[in-house]
Amino acid sequence: MSGRGKVYLVGAGPGDPELLTVKAQRLLRDCDVVVYDRLVSAAILDQVPPGVTRINAGKAPGRHTMTQGQISALLVRLARAGYQVVRLKGGDPFVFGRGSEEARELARHRVAFEVVPGITAAAGASAYAGIPLTHRGLAHGVRLVTGHRQDGAPLDLDWSCLADPAATLVIYMGLGHVEEIVRQLVAHGLSPRTPAAAIQDGTLPGQRRCLTTLGELAGTVRAAGLRPPVTLVIGRVVSLAPELDWFTGAADASAEESHG
Amino acid sequence: MSGRGKVYLVGAGPGDPELLTVKAQRLLRDCDVVVYDRLVSAAILDQVPPGVTRINAGKAPGRHTMTQGQISALLVRLARAGYQVVRLKGGDPFVFGRGSEEARELARHRVAFEVVPGITAAAGASAYAGIPLTHRGLAHGVRLVTGHRQDGAPLDLDWSCLADPAATLVIYMGLGHVEEIVRQLVAHGLSPRTPAAAIQDGTLPGQRRCLTTLGELAGTVRAAGLRPPVTLVIGRVVSLAPELDWFTGAADASAEESHG
Repeated sequence: MSGRGKVYLVGAGPGDPELLTVKAQRLLRDCDVVVYDRLVSAAILDQVPPGVTRINAGKAPGRHTMTQGQISALLVRLARAGYQVVRLKGGDPFVFGRGSEEARELARHRVAFEVVPGITAAAGASAYAGIPLTHRGLAHGVRLVTGHRQDGAPLDLDWSCLADPAATLVIYMGLGHVEEIVRQLVAHGLSPRTPAAAIQDGTLPGQRRCLTTLGELAGTVRAAGLRPPVTLVIGRVVSLAPELDWFTGAADASAEESHG
Repeated sequence: MSGRGKVYLVGAGPGDPELLTVKAQRLLRDCDVVVYDRLVSAAILDQVPPGVTRINAGKAPGRHTMTQGQISALLVRLARAGYQVVRLKGGDPFVFGRGSEEARELARHRVAFEVVPGITAAAGASAYAGIPLTHRGLAHGVRLVTGHRQDGAPLDLDWSCLADPAATLVIYMGLGHVEEIVRQLVAHGLSPRTPAAAIQDGTLPGQRRCLTTLGELAGTVRAAGLRPPVTLVIGRVVSLAPELDWFTGAADASAEESHG
């Protein structure tokens, strides 16, 4: 710890520690302090060397360890003290990660920073569930939205545009509003027979994947007892998931190996 | 090379070799053969050890080294010969990468495969250009589309939905159709004053970033002489780019260091 401090806003990816970027892994090994979020997996925190200070800034809905303002102030303070700081966020810091709010605070206080993108849940959870986000003839584009509202307000989304059978819709943290999501999409014209998936703990060994239809989505996730974090994927591309299910097999093979 | 072959469909990310995932880096070091695309950066290919066979399957518009069918057949053949094969694609294999077409061919031929997501251009190029994809009050969601058409046909996009001032629009390979993109978005109601960016060679040391407005976008990229690959980002979030421009400074600092 010497010279000028700096903050690295780093995406930890969806959970699998091998989905860290090379840069994220290097920074975790070389930094002085890691300030991490609730959605960063234990397997990733295990990669932080013993000598590095860890600060849990995790925010659970309705039970904040630190407010957003407190987190930003902490990052400024640590950098000004000369530390190399990794601000570790689940997924990608610039996709529903509020990383840009922290970056603005750092810029305002003239603290040097870098942004290290991470694999976002849409890409990670979908790939491990065997679901391509685009596929010729099935989806010509992707939409990413969040189903999380800080104040518990109803979702303010452009449902008529989201109800597009030719695009893949990925909803982050959609479990709490799944009934409303299904109702609105169907009311705006998306067929209840549209393939849909719910993925819990995407890319982790305990990943759970429910394949169903839009009409059955809410009932399926409730019956399966899925718990956050859950990524919802809605669109024709989900029809490929049984065929492209490489991860279940790979996980089974690992399990067999570990029993052998 | 022994035992059963396997194909890893691996995303190489947008260009910066440090944005490879840890898994991608490990597989590149351990595999027998790499079959790579045109959009994989030279800096990343430099990481492939000398003993590994490299096959260029690069497809340039109108000048195909191999057809998609030939590439899939090659992957099947290599795996059946017992090789560990990395199929290395720019960005993420399941986002406009046609990785799912190759995965289906592998599944049909009962070849074992895995999918390794990569940082996609929207996340990588935007982050290095200082542009968050979402930001409270500016963008509640993201849309990813491609401006590339294999047969040179006009773009078949849902323009009225894309012309949404409250969402960020990222267009992959949009340079060839930039005039049409601007015309359609404005015709469908998006203000010509909407902030817009064009990013060439995103995340690489030679990255070029043009910040402008939707109305000026086509003229700006032509005047700047941008060349593919270019990622277009359109939306209010682009207004944050001057404030969050960490990469230009970091690149300048590296340049100073290398001259010092």
